[in-house]
Amino acid sequence: MRIALGLQYDGSPYAGWQVQHNQNTVQAELEKAITAFIGEEAIKHPVHTITAGRTDAGVHALGQVVHFDTHVEREDFSWVRGVNSFLPGSIVVNWAKVVPEEFSARFSAFERTYIYALHAGPCRSPLMNERAGYVLLPPNQWFDVDTMRQAAQCLIGEHDFSSFRSSECQSKTPVKTMYTIDIISDEPWLYFRMRGNAFLHHMVRNLVGCFLQIGRGRQNPEWMAQLLAAKDRKLAAPTFMPDGLYLAKIAYPEQFAIPAPWLANSWIPSEIIRT
Amino acid sequence: MRIALGLQYDGSPYAGWQVQHNQNTVQAELEKAITAFIGEEAIKHPVHTITAGRTDAGVHALGQVVHFDTHVEREDFSWVRGVNSFLPGSIVVNWAKVVPEEFSARFSAFERTYIYALHAGPCRSPLMNERAGYVLLPPNQWFDVDTMRQAAQCLIGEHDFSSFRSSECQSKTPVKTMYTIDIISDEPWLYFRMRGNAFLHHMVRNLVGCFLQIGRGRQNPEWMAQLLAAKDRKLAAPTFMPDGLYLAKIAYPEQFAIPAPWLANSWIPSEIIRT
Repeated sequence: MRIALGLQYDGSPYAGWQVQHNQNTVQAELEKAITAFIGEEAIKHPVHTITAGRTDAGVHALGQVVHFDTHVEREDFSWVRGVNSFLPGSIVVNWAKVVPEEFSARFSAFERTYIYALHAGPCRSPLMNERAGYVLLPPNQWFDVDTMRQAAQCLIGEHDFSSFRSSECQSKTPVKTMYTIDIISDEPWLYFRMRGNAFLHHMVRNLVGCFLQIGRGRQNPEWMAQLLAAKDRKLAAPTFMPDGLYLAKIAYPEQFAIPAPWLANSWIPSEIIRT
Repeated sequence: MRIALGLQYDGSPYAGWQVQHNQNTVQAELEKAITAFIGEEAIKHPVHTITAGRTDAGVHALGQVVHFDTHVEREDFSWVRGVNSFLPGSIVVNWAKVVPEEFSARFSAFERTYIYALHAGPCRSPLMNERAGYVLLPPNQWFDVDTMRQAAQCLIGEHDFSSFRSSECQSKTPVKTMYTIDIISDEPWLYFRMRGNAFLHHMVRNLVGCFLQIGRGRQNPEWMAQLLAAKDRKLAAPTFMPDGLYLAKIAYPEQFAIPAPWLANSWIPSEIIRT
């Protein structure tokens, strides 16, 4: 039987999603919790989870989706309660659902939404420490949001995003499709919401770094198109900090009836995640 | 010269405010950072800070105020920038100000405001882990807020709050004056805002624990007055978790012109802190 789970986590204590030797990862915590919940059966058939998006160290999730196969039968809500009872406070299962064998959390996903939440101003906020990015701005100064929005236009559609790709990226192709980029300004907060078919390693953080150069007047808006055309990672801004990055939503074909992510329980206004 | 500082911190990594042997505390981090900033002078005259409110392990601050004495002269903003450069991401100095010798962060304060931020629903939120309290509620269930507000009435004014006082409390008297208690409901969030001249050890958390018993229908609203009259800690609810408690604001006589706390940079809506 194949089970899909909806997850949220605070990525700050973890070395990313994927199981790594001697590292604390979200996948390792989740598989340990599922194993503890199903008991003996996990010894015969070790639990292995497949995810929609392998988030990096320090990156959070509001709507992560995973699947795994098991012989164990439980009510949906029993999976939620049972696995949660073995998870630390930084990870939670929001829903569980039996899915057909042709469902894959990774390969059935046709769209991913990432949100980057940024706090800016004269003082950083300890209350948002590790849960939002931060840029030091002098009092009464703010980003040129319209110029950033103008710069975003060239990224929409199918492009070779090599200029925004980390050297460790394992994707077969640098060609991805960006559907929308929304930049929402609500001082002292700035949110970037990017919706695409898939994203390269560090792509959102690299794009955010470039947007901020433009938004602070250090580059003109045409710079983004020049970077995109150059297909050269060395020209773009440094990878921006992981602290504000959230995997917000994964879209699947309707036939699988995958539940929407829980939005109300984060500090990010739910209309920003939803829209 | 006497310097006052305005502070914010995430209390979750700390064993509370006060310096303790072999423990990581906010005061120890702050004094270490001031010492590092002023250098040699601190060897001759070790820095000692006095605070308005000695927050407990895991308790946060939005508007903490401290003072210390020094021979070192710096511009106000230089104190802010300099001390911040030696502080971890979980603590920040928002403002610094030279104050007269008769100012005491502790004894000049005539009013303290605490906010307790609670998240409730069928699933806990990892994004709010350690930064909000949590109560598990079944779907479509919420607290009886009017009944809690009714129960709050008996606490307003000068009372002996022994029933809500921890056995470790060092206050000379259990008699304190509560000015206002506001309970703000914004599902899935519930905020308690308490304004009083001073608070006993664990008093806010003990009161929140009792309010939640009433709000969930496990006790009637008259129970609060019975507890207050009994002056017996054993009768009240257990001390509620520290995770959602914020020292929001300290009030001083106008003559000292102490800046208001920075409110915009926390996830708690600033109108809830301000009102």
